[in-house]
Amino acid sequence: MNISGQLTVDDLPRVCPLLCRQTNPGYGGDQTRVVEVGGVRFGNGSPVVIAGPCAVESHEQTLAVARAVKHAGADMLRGGAYKPRTSPHDFQGMGVEGLCILRIAREETGLPIVTEVMDTRLVEQVAQYADMLQIGSRNMQNYPLLAEVGRAGKPVLLKRGMAASLGEWLGAAEYIAKQGNLNIVLCERGIKAFAAGEYSRYVLDLNVIPAVLANTFLPVIVDPSHATGVASMVEPASRAALEFGSHGLLIEVADFATGRPRCDADQAIDGKTLARIVKFAHHRHEQLLFARQAA
Amino acid sequence: MNISGQLTVDDLPRVCPLLCRQTNPGYGGDQTRVVEVGGVRFGNGSPVVIAGPCAVESHEQTLAVARAVKHAGADMLRGGAYKPRTSPHDFQGMGVEGLCILRIAREETGLPIVTEVMDTRLVEQVAQYADMLQIGSRNMQNYPLLAEVGRAGKPVLLKRGMAASLGEWLGAAEYIAKQGNLNIVLCERGIKAFAAGEYSRYVLDLNVIPAVLANTFLPVIVDPSHATGVASMVEPASRAALEFGSHGLLIEVADFATGRPRCDADQAIDGKTLARIVKFAHHRHEQLLFARQAA
Amino acid sequence: MNISGQLTVDDLPRVCPLLCRQTNPGYGGDQTRVVEVGGVRFGNGSPVVIAGPCAVESHEQTLAVARAVKHAGADMLRGGAYKPRTSPHDFQGMGVEGLCILRIAREETGLPIVTEVMDTRLVEQVAQYADMLQIGSRNMQNYPLLAEVGRAGKPVLLKRGMAASLGEWLGAAEYIAKQGNLNIVLCERGIKAFAAGEYSRYVLDLNVIPAVLANTFLPVIVDPSHATGVASMVEPASRAALEFGSHGLLIEVADFATGRPRCDADQAIDGKTLARIVKFAHHRHEQLLFARQAA
Amino acid sequence: MNISGQLTVDDLPRVCPLLCRQTNPGYGGDQTRVVEVGGVRFGNGSPVVIAGPCAVESHEQTLAVARAVKHAGADMLRGGAYKPRTSPHDFQGMGVEGLCILRIAREETGLPIVTEVMDTRLVEQVAQYADMLQIGSRNMQNYPLLAEVGRAGKPVLLKRGMAASLGEWLGAAEYIAKQGNLNIVLCERGIKAFAAGEYSRYVLDLNVIPAVLANTFLPVIVDPSHATGVASMVEPASRAALEFGSHGLLIEVADFATGRPRCDADQAIDGKTLARIVKFAHHRHEQLLFARQAA
Repeated sequence: MNISGQLTVDDLPRVCPLLCRQTNPGYGGDQTRVVEVGGVRFGNGSPVVIAGPCAVESHEQTLAVARAVKHAGADMLRGGAYKPRTSPHDFQGMGVEGLCILRIAREETGLPIVTEVMDTRLVEQVAQYADMLQIGSRNMQNYPLLAEVGRAGKPVLLKRGMAASLGEWLGAAEYIAKQGNLNIVLCERGIKAFAAGEYSRYVLDLNVIPAVLANTFLPVIVDPSHATGVASMVEPASRAALEFGSHGLLIEVADFATGRPRCDADQAIDGKTLARIVKFAHHRHEQLLFARQAA
Repeated sequence: MNISGQLTVDDLPRVCPLLCRQTNPGYGGDQTRVVEVGGVRFGNGSPVVIAGPCAVESHEQTLAVARAVKHAGADMLRGGAYKPRTSPHDFQGMGVEGLCILRIAREETGLPIVTEVMDTRLVEQVAQYADMLQIGSRNMQNYPLLAEVGRAGKPVLLKRGMAASLGEWLGAAEYIAKQGNLNIVLCERGIKAFAAGEYSRYVLDLNVIPAVLANTFLPVIVDPSHATGVASMVEPASRAALEFGSHGLLIEVADFATGRPRCDADQAIDGKTLARIVKFAHHRHEQLLFARQAA
Repeated sequence: MNISGQLTVDDLPRVCPLLCRQTNPGYGGDQTRVVEVGGVRFGNGSPVVIAGPCAVESHEQTLAVARAVKHAGADMLRGGAYKPRTSPHDFQGMGVEGLCILRIAREETGLPIVTEVMDTRLVEQVAQYADMLQIGSRNMQNYPLLAEVGRAGKPVLLKRGMAASLGEWLGAAEYIAKQGNLNIVLCERGIKAFAAGEYSRYVLDLNVIPAVLANTFLPVIVDPSHATGVASMVEPASRAALEFGSHGLLIEVADFATGRPRCDADQAIDGKTLARIVKFAHHRHEQLLFARQAA
Repeated sequence: MNISGQLTVDDLPRVCPLLCRQTNPGYGGDQTRVVEVGGVRFGNGSPVVIAGPCAVESHEQTLAVARAVKHAGADMLRGGAYKPRTSPHDFQGMGVEGLCILRIAREETGLPIVTEVMDTRLVEQVAQYADMLQIGSRNMQNYPLLAEVGRAGKPVLLKRGMAASLGEWLGAAEYIAKQGNLNIVLCERGIKAFAAGEYSRYVLDLNVIPAVLANTFLPVIVDPSHATGVASMVEPASRAALEFGSHGLLIEVADFATGRPRCDADQAIDGKTLARIVKFAHHRHEQLLFARQAA
């Protein structure tokens, strides 16, 4: 019985020769490529915390959250202007108006911005506003979009598909790399499994982090908000991700004073919790550095 | 513990009001909308068999397969001119040249053609050649693409994402419907689960067929080639799909005399096997009709 | 990265040398061992239909269902005297009293009986009443129990664990075989996957049927009741299983006139539906025989 | 469409009234029951580290590992005398001789012992040697065994089934509790999902830890060895588990100087790595205590 199309880790040198450790000995056994976004450096050792609202809903809400994110010590601002929603009748994001609001938030806070792009025809527009382009989980295998963001000259945040194998994920990244753009940061965001839905939204798959580090030189971060879907799990999931070697975090934050978010409200944390996570990230990084030097 | 974003069957009237049975009582409890493609009618009772090569690889190969498909009695021809592949270094399809070959095959055989489109910017081009536009599993939640094919004025074959829930699948179809295009045929093609990869490529989920029929008036077919990934399983899977109420089949066929296919060769059947499947489909339909009239 | 404990189909000759086709060339490429239970023959070509209540709840209920099962033309009677339930506070079955009722039902109908045993200390007792011992899905890897039923001298129905790989399932069967008992019938009953629970109880994995047939000489049947959990899906699932080469069916039936069953009522069918399934099974078998002779 | 047998978190008060927070307000909102095993206290705040060989293979190997475990500062010794193996032809453990060796190891090191029992008829025997009885993943729903260990008067370590929902897991614990034994410690050990096998043995599901803590007063620990199946992932997985609130760890250790283990060698760590994990566990606990007092 032969089965078509099954990939294993052994296929990676063929699937993603531009990104695979085996075919890129220059990165040594364990070095990570540093991806720089507006002065923020992924893969540099110090974890990068990206935080912000699920969606840009208004000027007021976005600025309030952006200030909280800045105040908490996070490194970058996230926020969706174009939102992929399960139903076309749900709020789809503010579009270009949302991008403008994000630019204002960046000007005020100085935080670089990452935002999702879903449409090849909008890559150029979004790239004018964003410091980093996000490919969402549902578009991980939207290959024309991957090629387009590869050509846009901006760093890319590539989320893992919700049922993507490691081989499929790195194959997707290779589409970006093939356009000459190696400034890619991977992002684990939870997978589908029988357990998803009973007590958490997805199953947070942290085992994939060391597997990514062993097989590619790209940095990898974790989105604990989608991977759990439960606000009270975001902080422990963030710490756990860092213990597993994640180069950063992507977190949804709300300013509950200005109102309940229109999407994914149950998984949003407040600024105070974010500040504890940022503090942990920095402190933990120093500890690990110190331990390595002592060893 | 509240969990964001979990859908159940009860959410369907909100997620897909244009397609949901509950919000469209005009279709009665069990009637299916007939979707017509070049004279072929889906949902009409008689199962539609679509067959053809995985990819259009050459004029010779495509015509040979198309003749075998016609000879076997199938209703429509499939074949990929644009192929979504896990690695960008794999064969990506012949593009517009492939579309031309498909047109020639249609002219010779008279079979209407379904072919995949992956890029919003190519929808118009592909729509000029194809009788039906296919959205592949990886693009099931590529919402700009869904809207674009919705506007193209051609019937759409919407494959289920490999980890899509029923709610996510019907939500995706609703994006097409929202553009005024209700000529949508759904296609189950196997899901990801722990068992996938040991003895079959995906897990064929036939339980979803009656669930689709109970919740929407759209026709639904099954792709036994991807759902099994094993040529010898395609025939039993086809018969099983029809027993479950599938309105048709989408099958990969090869002409091994002209050479081994460049993609998914292990799951391709030959014309003789296809002919048996077609015969079964027609015979079984008559039996069921007769049984219903007798009851 | 080495990973402990991953089995593939290639490991089967080592995992289950007593049952594996490769190590038992005497069975030819595709012959099945015939397992006989009170005159009923599994693997003999003609599909065996086992039907009956989920649990033996009373003398009246069991006899009513048994008569309906007999009347519908089924071959064997099923019914649980010992019920494995998720909570210890749920009805656990009638125990030895239930076994007595099953014996009475057998005397009246002449149908051989299969019933579940969960406790090594009760194997002897259950074996005195039953013609075939059932190992349930939750006990598929209860190895002391497998060895004990292997020694009991009765044929065994071994259900697949709800997340068991093919290798784990055949390894479990090998525990029975190692005691000198090769009278084993395998039973697929649905697996756990992300899709389970939205529209069906488990995911019916029919791809495993040809994989079983290719890798062992044991007969294999399908339980469409648990695999779907929805009464209206049981009939199509039964037909689909037979199309996939299943040697039989294990179906839950209720006599709704005598009351709603205390467990799994939503998946029980009535005698009339069972009769249609039996008729289909016989008719379909003759068709296939005829087709093979003609070929 | 009604589906039989689907549990949600809302069913817990009915499924496990003896263990559920909602039906046991005496434990407050977040208090954990302390389970004591030979002076070691689970749920007491300080994480319990249990370590030892996968299987007891010889006196020499077990004593060497036990000394390394003691030296590393762990709290308890694990080791299998009865091993559930996928094939009956694999090493099944040393049985009672293995229990004797474990007793010697306890006498020498002073470490309490946990070991698996698989057979109701051996519960009394194993209970004479062990301080804590382990129910393995494959026997999580072996209800007669659960009842028997419930009656044995020893604390129980109940591993989660590899595809068990939270409801099924707590339902299994309730079988033990129903016998009057509330000294139960739960243990997450990885689940089956599409991702299992590509880069790790199972998918480590840490989201379940806060879900357990929210729904029952029982302590819960994590087995990072089986959940990853890769030795180099055990240390990060251990730290991550503690960040998620795990009350302890169950870790496989080998003494590679005395030879490669006969089972699960790829997931065993050495004593030095274990020592780092123990140190982290203690240090982290003090930090969290301090942080809570400061807050």
